[in-house]
Amino acid sequence: MPSLEHAWILVMAGGSGTRFWPLSRASRPKQMLPLAGGPPLLRRTVDRARPLVPPSRTLVFTAAGLAPAVRRMLPEIPPGNVLGEPVGRNTAPCVGVAAGLARARDPRAVMAVLPADHVISDERAFRADLSRALRLAAREPWLVTLGVRPTGPATGYGYIETGPPLPVDRRARRVRRFIEKPSLARARRFLAARRFLWNAGIFAWGAETILGAIRACHPTLGRRLDALDRARWAPAAIARAYPAFPSISIDYAVLEKAPQVAVLPVRFEWDDVGTWDAIPAHHPADRCGNVCVGDAVAEDARENLLVAEKGGLVAALGVKGLVVVHTPDATLVCPRGRTQEIRKIVETLRSRGDACRL
Amino acid sequence: MPSLEHAWILVMAGGSGTRFWPLSRASRPKQMLPLAGGPPLLRRTVDRARPLVPPSRTLVFTAAGLAPAVRRMLPEIPPGNVLGEPVGRNTAPCVGVAAGLARARDPRAVMAVLPADHVISDERAFRADLSRALRLAAREPWLVTLGVRPTGPATGYGYIETGPPLPVDRRARRVRRFIEKPSLARARRFLAARRFLWNAGIFAWGAETILGAIRACHPTLGRRLDALDRARWAPAAIARAYPAFPSISIDYAVLEKAPQVAVLPVRFEWDDVGTWDAIPAHHPADRCGNVCVGDAVAEDARENLLVAEKGGLVAALGVKGLVVVHTPDATLVCPRGRTQEIRKIVETLRSRGDACRL
Repeated sequence: MPSLEHAWILVMAGGSGTRFWPLSRASRPKQMLPLAGGPPLLRRTVDRARPLVPPSRTLVFTAAGLAPAVRRMLPEIPPGNVLGEPVGRNTAPCVGVAAGLARARDPRAVMAVLPADHVISDERAFRADLSRALRLAAREPWLVTLGVRPTGPATGYGYIETGPPLPVDRRARRVRRFIEKPSLARARRFLAARRFLWNAGIFAWGAETILGAIRACHPTLGRRLDALDRARWAPAAIARAYPAFPSISIDYAVLEKAPQVAVLPVRFEWDDVGTWDAIPAHHPADRCGNVCVGDAVAEDARENLLVAEKGGLVAALGVKGLVVVHTPDATLVCPRGRTQEIRKIVETLRSRGDACRL
Repeated sequence: MPSLEHAWILVMAGGSGTRFWPLSRASRPKQMLPLAGGPPLLRRTVDRARPLVPPSRTLVFTAAGLAPAVRRMLPEIPPGNVLGEPVGRNTAPCVGVAAGLARARDPRAVMAVLPADHVISDERAFRADLSRALRLAAREPWLVTLGVRPTGPATGYGYIETGPPLPVDRRARRVRRFIEKPSLARARRFLAARRFLWNAGIFAWGAETILGAIRACHPTLGRRLDALDRARWAPAAIARAYPAFPSISIDYAVLEKAPQVAVLPVRFEWDDVGTWDAIPAHHPADRCGNVCVGDAVAEDARENLLVAEKGGLVAALGVKGLVVVHTPDATLVCPRGRTQEIRKIVETLRSRGDACRL
């Protein structure tokens, strides 16, 4: 088995953070918040991978405006390894640029791609699976995605239909197809069929492999990356290139089209913490089922999620099943189960030009 | 009819403000808040009586800590007319001291007593009724209370059973008895009987009359007031006397016992704005029945009261019939109809020593 001496980590921390409004803002998106208790999600993501890959081979991509805050949060990462994207262009350009940067320093680089805003509690199991995926990607030119065994018919995730096992690692399987967020009926069939996995958005591949796949599957992006390669991946050239990149996900640009895509079913519990509704699972509840993140007083109140920013307080009296989030300049109240609709509030604020609350 | 040249106003602004928590605090109780839109309730109370009585004959009693803020809010009132009580002692000592101060300047003084935190929209009708009560009190030694025609079987008010009309003013009636907050069944009987009025807590009496009644009905308080009279109502003597005053309401100390108590049924609409539930009546609602005081965004939300302090915002999504109050350091959420229970929250904060939020 090859060691991980050529392994790199790309942490994608580009989230804009509307789904956790009012706690999350453009200047402090989800990955900067301690939503699962303890340190912020980005800090935990970097710490989780740290035993596998040193800071010198860890790249973090974020919005340009957030780069200073990210560098402060991750002081051990060389400042040049934190890239501020001048404009958001989804994940494909970010993956391509990161792969180019890694390959420029090590032609044999293999890279794990980690979203900065997921919660994975069993860190040992995570590292075992991730290093297995990296070793697979180092040995053969597979694009490896990590697949999570579904625990219910979720309609908010992408699904992967698995095919036959790979000879090089019999736990990994060829990907038959990707299915974007399915209907509930379809998600139920996937669950019953047992050969579908959730796409965790965590990948491993050789830098050369993914760059070749981009060139083959999305020639426009491939050409722009080749031009950057000729510019030796100079930071100024990258910044200049960003606005002209297509805005497209690596899943859609490459994975759904590439011939050699594999999935490694993982053994750790995974939560992408997509909305406020995902938060209670990561915090203890009081005896009435209230989950309090920050300071709260609950009086004859049940099964609420009460969130107060440091220095603030939420007082809930006689209410049930609500999400209440207090920040100094805004409060959100909504029933549990409807927090995915918060974007409507954010859109209203945007349409009235309420920049200070976005 | 005697004129109002001997008329005085006592505005009682001693409320501690727990019922409108978190907007109301010890340092900014209900009467200092613009709860009915426009100026704060205290400012409106003083303005409402202004055409009847000049500032030089208007006294305002409040907590000592609030006196500077009250003087700033009422710059036309001579600073010496704003009395800061070193400790709260309910209404009887306040009424007695104010009567003594007025009588010391005018032996024929008659005084109207106005709570600082009520809402009365029809100011002309209010002044017509109040001047009628003052004239009655100037002619004969009645203790006159203003009575409001009940509009429902409220259990939160005191009731007055009316007796025969007074010869001196046939609209006014002798008070047969006071009934404190009744049960719902009893309140319904009162409503059906049609001879019961709500006690508005607004009074008119001669200064000499009320001082004599206090002496007769509550000799302990009477003696302490006599001592202050000998000290010529010097501010320092008043301040020293306060801690030793009994803490008792003028209703309980005097009105329920005195022989010559009358009630004038009033013709204005009156609201003591006792809880958050009283607020929607004084503000326009949107087409979904939401009442917003301050900045709010409502999305698929109905019949909520959404209150945000200046600079703050309440966002309500998918909720119905709630009261949501945002301040920079605390948010309250509770169903409409249960806001009288807010004191439980305040007690919890008090028991944990959360002084900055009280």
